[in-house]
Amino acid sequence: SRYDYITDGAKIYERSFATIRAEADLSGYDADEERVAVRMIHAAGEIDLTRDIAFSPGAVAAGMAALRAGAPILTDVQMVASGVTRKRLPADNEVICLLSDPRVPQLAADLGTTRTAAAVELWRERLDGAVVAIGNAPTALFHLLDRLHEWEQRPAVILGIPVGFIGAAESKEALAGNDLDLRSIVVHGRRGGSAITCGAINAISSTQE
Amino acid sequence: SRYDYITDGAKIYERSFATIRAEADLSGYDADEERVAVRMIHAAGEIDLTRDIAFSPGAVAAGMAALRAGAPILTDVQMVASGVTRKRLPADNEVICLLSDPRVPQLAADLGTTRTAAAVELWRERLDGAVVAIGNAPTALFHLLDRLHEWEQRPAVILGIPVGFIGAAESKEALAGNDLDLRSIVVHGRRGGSAITCGAINAISSTQE
Repeated sequence: SRYDYITDGAKIYERSFATIRAEADLSGYDADEERVAVRMIHAAGEIDLTRDIAFSPGAVAAGMAALRAGAPILTDVQMVASGVTRKRLPADNEVICLLSDPRVPQLAADLGTTRTAAAVELWRERLDGAVVAIGNAPTALFHLLDRLHEWEQRPAVILGIPVGFIGAAESKEALAGNDLDLRSIVVHGRRGGSAITCGAINAISSTQE
Repeated sequence: SRYDYITDGAKIYERSFATIRAEADLSGYDADEERVAVRMIHAAGEIDLTRDIAFSPGAVAAGMAALRAGAPILTDVQMVASGVTRKRLPADNEVICLLSDPRVPQLAADLGTTRTAAAVELWRERLDGAVVAIGNAPTALFHLLDRLHEWEQRPAVILGIPVGFIGAAESKEALAGNDLDLRSIVVHGRRGGSAITCGAINAISSTQE
């Protein structure tokens, strides 16, 4: 090669995680939370993501236990579903994105909301004990929080990591500050998105680095 | 709803882009570049991404023309392929990710490199005039640059937006500073990834906001 670079995938991961651990302020996290934060930082390419990451007590442990017990992952967008590393999943867990379900456009029209929010309606029967990963749409997170005030189902944990300029920060504050005892993992502020969300899910799936 | 938020998807986009245009320094971009930068910022949730975005002269226009002429999009990872909005594509363009091709593991072993880099070998016959979108792996970008010193094929434009701590910044410098007259769109430094890459592709696909 004309270029000097590492071609060994395992070594790239190892050095990446070592760089993150050398540079990032990971104090205050327990071992499971640290592992999740490191993969979120890895996906973002940003050490200072720790400023905005917030775990509710026991959120990571609950997500790990749920996946080991075979819980499905419910997500708002196909990019998150694509980025979940299937071979890290402990129980060949289902990864479910219902955005393309044929019922969604009519539901969105009836409810007067976005299609990503409307698709949340279709999560209900799989929601109890599930790992929820919202990596794109603030409207999906707001809609879910509204429904959880009415529905009896409770997910094991909600990853609320939508990205953007309109509603994202507010939706994550609503999740992190919820009065329903919902366990949560959020990235406060405007940052977020499918890659960071997948980093978190892939870390919750397996303790292997 | 218990929450005060916008549920109209078109309005969310409109206000998001207006916020970005109000806050970001978009001077120095032509109209096409500005549109691409705005969608990259939108995907990242970070106004200061402009610090690191670099377009080579004519790169966006070349990408737009290639897609209108029916060129395929070649990408290193499935997350980018998932995030390309098909209905924005001007010519029902193919979106090709060959990472799961059954030849890739053996190629990677033979070449002593990562699977994402090895998959680049399989791009050759579709590469001439294509839009290349590398949204994850520095090794794929380095491998492509090495091959383009030997191969006669020339993509219309290369989006070099890998993310991370090992090799990402260096691979993007190598692309932006190439001596092969390759047109490029990069995000310098550690930031990048599939979401930002899809933002750029979706902006190149259509002038509609």
